[in-house]
Amino acid sequence: MAQKPSIPKGTRDFSPAEVAKRNYIIENIRNQFQNFGFQPIETPSFENSDTLMGKYGEEGDRLIFKILNSGDFLKKADPAAYDERDSLKITSSISEKALRYDLTVPFARYVVQHRNELEFPFKRYQIQPVWRADRPQKGRFREFYQCDADVVGSTSLWQEVEFVQLYDAVFTALGLEGVTIKINNRKVLSGFAEVIGESEKLIDFTIALDKLDKIGVDGVKKEMQEKGISSEAIKKIEEVFNLKGDFSEKIGVLKNILSSSEIGKKGIRELEFIAEAIEELKLETAKLDLDVTLARGLNYYTGAIFEVAAPDDVQIGSIGGGGRYDDLTGIFGLNDVSGVGISFGLDRIYLVLEELDLFPEAVSGNIKALFINFGENESMYCLKAIKELRKAGIASELYPDDAKMKKQMTHANRREIPFVILAGQDEMDKGEFTVKTMRTGEQDTLSLEKLVEKIRDL
Amino acid sequence: MAQKPSIPKGTRDFSPAEVAKRNYIIENIRNQFQNFGFQPIETPSFENSDTLMGKYGEEGDRLIFKILNSGDFLKKADPAAYDERDSLKITSSISEKALRYDLTVPFARYVVQHRNELEFPFKRYQIQPVWRADRPQKGRFREFYQCDADVVGSTSLWQEVEFVQLYDAVFTALGLEGVTIKINNRKVLSGFAEVIGESEKLIDFTIALDKLDKIGVDGVKKEMQEKGISSEAIKKIEEVFNLKGDFSEKIGVLKNILSSSEIGKKGIRELEFIAEAIEELKLETAKLDLDVTLARGLNYYTGAIFEVAAPDDVQIGSIGGGGRYDDLTGIFGLNDVSGVGISFGLDRIYLVLEELDLFPEAVSGNIKALFINFGENESMYCLKAIKELRKAGIASELYPDDAKMKKQMTHANRREIPFVILAGQDEMDKGEFTVKTMRTGEQDTLSLEKLVEKIRDL
Repeated sequence: MAQKPSIPKGTRDFSPAEVAKRNYIIENIRNQFQNFGFQPIETPSFENSDTLMGKYGEEGDRLIFKILNSGDFLKKADPAAYDERDSLKITSSISEKALRYDLTVPFARYVVQHRNELEFPFKRYQIQPVWRADRPQKGRFREFYQCDADVVGSTSLWQEVEFVQLYDAVFTALGLEGVTIKINNRKVLSGFAEVIGESEKLIDFTIALDKLDKIGVDGVKKEMQEKGISSEAIKKIEEVFNLKGDFSEKIGVLKNILSSSEIGKKGIRELEFIAEAIEELKLETAKLDLDVTLARGLNYYTGAIFEVAAPDDVQIGSIGGGGRYDDLTGIFGLNDVSGVGISFGLDRIYLVLEELDLFPEAVSGNIKALFINFGENESMYCLKAIKELRKAGIASELYPDDAKMKKQMTHANRREIPFVILAGQDEMDKGEFTVKTMRTGEQDTLSLEKLVEKIRDL
Repeated sequence: MAQKPSIPKGTRDFSPAEVAKRNYIIENIRNQFQNFGFQPIETPSFENSDTLMGKYGEEGDRLIFKILNSGDFLKKADPAAYDERDSLKITSSISEKALRYDLTVPFARYVVQHRNELEFPFKRYQIQPVWRADRPQKGRFREFYQCDADVVGSTSLWQEVEFVQLYDAVFTALGLEGVTIKINNRKVLSGFAEVIGESEKLIDFTIALDKLDKIGVDGVKKEMQEKGISSEAIKKIEEVFNLKGDFSEKIGVLKNILSSSEIGKKGIRELEFIAEAIEELKLETAKLDLDVTLARGLNYYTGAIFEVAAPDDVQIGSIGGGGRYDDLTGIFGLNDVSGVGISFGLDRIYLVLEELDLFPEAVSGNIKALFINFGENESMYCLKAIKELRKAGIASELYPDDAKMKKQMTHANRREIPFVILAGQDEMDKGEFTVKTMRTGEQDTLSLEKLVEKIRDL
């Protein structure tokens, strides 16, 4: 019995048009990664489970796709777990491998495993799919690409400056003008917590602050109070909720608030360094803004925190993010390797370019010319011409079957091929080709040389 | 406790140099696929298990990586299988998804699932990893890329002609001259079996014939006899074991042997059509040869069978293969869609290019220039220049830390960066840069404009 074919929920087939557009974005990101001195690595799709488990919290562990051991896997199943039918407990005894959940942990594993071959500071980029057993919903998939660039082995703030420029370079190359690169610093957040005397509540505090956009000032205050932060404490940093003005005006306010916090002041100095460098180097099309509510994966980040917002007229979440982390490789036994990195959100960038109609027409990856098949001799005549076209870099093909003219023309139309070439006995006798421009219907009869020129000039 | 990091056996980390070389091969294949009118699709890494299971034989089923269901998967485990601890039997109740085993079955699934959106004949290419739980050994991995191009929806032999040209175009673009594109036809093999009166032993017969290279004429005869094919039968096609000469001479011999077999004669006509077309169209650097021992996945193929051998001086298995199959999509309920396709063996092509030293030097993906970091002012001066270099497409970067000169030069040496740029107070005063060519040690002091020219002309 034939099966009705389908794919697992949360996964996607990509059509030729979609692949072409995705590759266009990836190529632009890759080009800028290379321009900025990042080099590609690739890691296996699955890692040993103990490389991944325990690195993303309990929820993360649950969302990691586990691969069943091959062969008679039940033989090695944990007997106690088997008797208790305990799915969670039995897993590690019947599954040794798991699909990667992100590119960051595999990168840390890579750096530690290959540390003797690597030259530090090591700048790598990685563009590969990751998998998460998340509940699928609009815009959230179980398989998706991550595009990451990281440097490890240097604490220099020039790296942060470079990453701001890199974001600007990629979005400029994609024609996506007016993105906002938001920056914050973990040390500034620590400073806030210190100033209000609630250093041990840093996480609760920043999780609440991060919601400012969504729930407003009153909502944030309410949540902070619920977490046991007093009204007096909140009052001390009230100004933070209403930061206005440009980068340096905001910095001015922060300096007042954080004047008593050493770590807070250090964070401010870092922000100032980056902002001043960018002001002097100038951005092409993006703008840099300070956003003290930005927290992201706070447990990772120790310095700069980045997030990129699409232009104001597009309603979508962040299209990129990253930051500095001081001990990523520590989990694998290599301490004191500071790193900083950023990521591009391929799926969301795709949606933004689609919405703003920014994909160039040439991205389709379509052939330029279809040669009509009039029979064996004509086909051979055409294939010789096609060979020359391809040498000139013009993608083209012969309709494979000697079908009715109408069918072949319909095929060209449906595939939106710009030129159709016809060569019958007349053309063959003269060594010529009749070319029909499909958009206008206009026809010309040309030598092969002129034909190549005409199509190339399209 | 820190873990000692490692990766699962049969998988690989790819270093920057390796990724750059792999991408070079993939880009060349992709360019020619596009030139020939193939369009890219991508399918999910995992499919529903019932899409894959039963499509590759019992051995294949065993080699498919299964993904454990999420959550409390034991709850739905087959009770009987659970009680019997039957790993094989329990699998389908605790695993609904599996990693793809090749690109062919997912492609068939794609064609059937999207048949109403597709315009036939449909020419697609697909370059993605596949996974097999095979025992790892030299040159055999559990994760590897396949690079496939197929056409479905046409029985035209021009497709076979195009595929021969496509192989030639790709290997020519890669600078790999002298590959042999071997061709055979399933109908010729059927003809042999018919002529010797052993049509029902076609598979045994061809499996034995396929080993001619390895075990010699006597070995093949012995194996055929063991499979119950009589000496008289073998005698009738003895000439097949010693086919000599060029394509048309071999065809001449086949015509004699197969004169009584309709299907055999049809196979010969197909081979002749392809050979004559290729003779007229000419190949750039490859040669086409008839190899009647070629069987490959005989159960798939119904017409042409292809295999590509590396140049004679390289000892390695086939670097490509393919053929025509008449009912690939039938397993998913869409009958009578003929297809033909070929595949490129990325890993082996890599080894061949490496052995013959055919990777261009520029493939490294390395930066061209490292700017030495002398401190804050100098760094800013350099970053402004770096911005211009990158705009000109020259990958370059600033050493991030104000480290000792020797350390920075060592870094440039280890990374084999061709130019090091130095700019101290003197250079800044004059708006110049000192550039050191690392290979020769030669130094020049240049304006930014001249610097760009010098590096670009490398």
